[in-house]
Amino acid sequence: MQGTTATTPEPTAYAPTDRTVPTRSADRASYDKDLVHSILDEGYVCHLGFVRDGAPVVLPTLYGRVGERLYVHGSTGSRPLRMTGQADPGLPVCLTVTLVDALILARSAFHHSINYRSVVVHGLAHDVTDPEEKRLALDALVDHVVPGRAQDSRPANKKELAATAVIRLDLDEVSAKLRTGGVNDEPEDLALPHWAGVLPLRKGYGSPVADGDLAPGTEVPGYLTAL
Amino acid sequence: MQGTTATTPEPTAYAPTDRTVPTRSADRASYDKDLVHSILDEGYVCHLGFVRDGAPVVLPTLYGRVGERLYVHGSTGSRPLRMTGQADPGLPVCLTVTLVDALILARSAFHHSINYRSVVVHGLAHDVTDPEEKRLALDALVDHVVPGRAQDSRPANKKELAATAVIRLDLDEVSAKLRTGGVNDEPEDLALPHWAGVLPLRKGYGSPVADGDLAPGTEVPGYLTAL
Repeated sequence: MQGTTATTPEPTAYAPTDRTVPTRSADRASYDKDLVHSILDEGYVCHLGFVRDGAPVVLPTLYGRVGERLYVHGSTGSRPLRMTGQADPGLPVCLTVTLVDALILARSAFHHSINYRSVVVHGLAHDVTDPEEKRLALDALVDHVVPGRAQDSRPANKKELAATAVIRLDLDEVSAKLRTGGVNDEPEDLALPHWAGVLPLRKGYGSPVADGDLAPGTEVPGYLTAL
Repeated sequence: MQGTTATTPEPTAYAPTDRTVPTRSADRASYDKDLVHSILDEGYVCHLGFVRDGAPVVLPTLYGRVGERLYVHGSTGSRPLRMTGQADPGLPVCLTVTLVDALILARSAFHHSINYRSVVVHGLAHDVTDPEEKRLALDALVDHVVPGRAQDSRPANKKELAATAVIRLDLDEVSAKLRTGGVNDEPEDLALPHWAGVLPLRKGYGSPVADGDLAPGTEVPGYLTAL
């Protein structure tokens, strides 16, 4: 309506593209932002793909999320970060995070599978040069390792900031893919004598092992015991 | 010595190449075959990178190992497998497996890290057309989910074999990278009041959940309870 300043609600899903619609098992794909965020926040390591001399390279690396932006950091000398700084308008990358939830043992070899949740992000990675954005990104990277940790550590100093490159990848061309549930054997195989079912994978934390040189009286912080 | 038929011992390490020597943290790199095999055998999912329309694509997928060969399978309709079948002399891929062992909490944000073990394989993926190699590869894929399982399941029938594409990647241009140990804070940070140390990540299995339609009297097999 003319004259009103209606705010458009934020879309709750990413728009599918040719690259994010799978050629098979399309029913396992999702573009829901909350689901994508939850998978990204649960993972520790992403696999960052880029092209070097015409060939693909896939490297594991830490990452952090701030809203609809993902950040990856590294030494200013590392290849993908150096390549991003030199790429205009940005370095084409594919960033993938995968969580494995369970092993699926079917009666037939063919229907063996895993339950998983994954996110694939396509886009251009950009060098982060704004000092404030870089600090927020580094906080997000530390908080991604343990939520609440950025506040309880010494922030990067000038020398460390200068040695660290940060790249940004916007969550724009994104899809999640997941398999849940149990065994999908063929009806004619049900009577076979092989055990079939789901073997859940358990993830958890061991007891924190304190550094030998802790300042006297330093206690295990609450955000760790909460895990 | 002339006249003797000395057998050359198999090398115990992969030969480093320009692509497998890291630009940084070279002390964390290894080319030891046993180490590479152990990491590959412990992981469940690899991240397979390839180039499509000039841009990188990174997809999670199951894999299996037979000696110095890795196998990935999928629907004959899936993109990387279809592309491999059409590529001559093979599809350039990068296959990466990463295990996350622990979170490293340093006093300084800069020295936060994780302990991990990863393997990166570069090479050309080849379509497996030999029926015997394809069967061995599929057995390896099932045994990779749970060792011993291939023997205790119905092998793929003709229809399933026809619907499944298998690609092979030889372990030739390979490196492992790992971080182990504790916190590497700067000496001047040791007196800071922040807790620092290692938070191990625990992996394990939940109790097997049997499919509702198991044939009467089917017990949980020993290779599962052994896990």
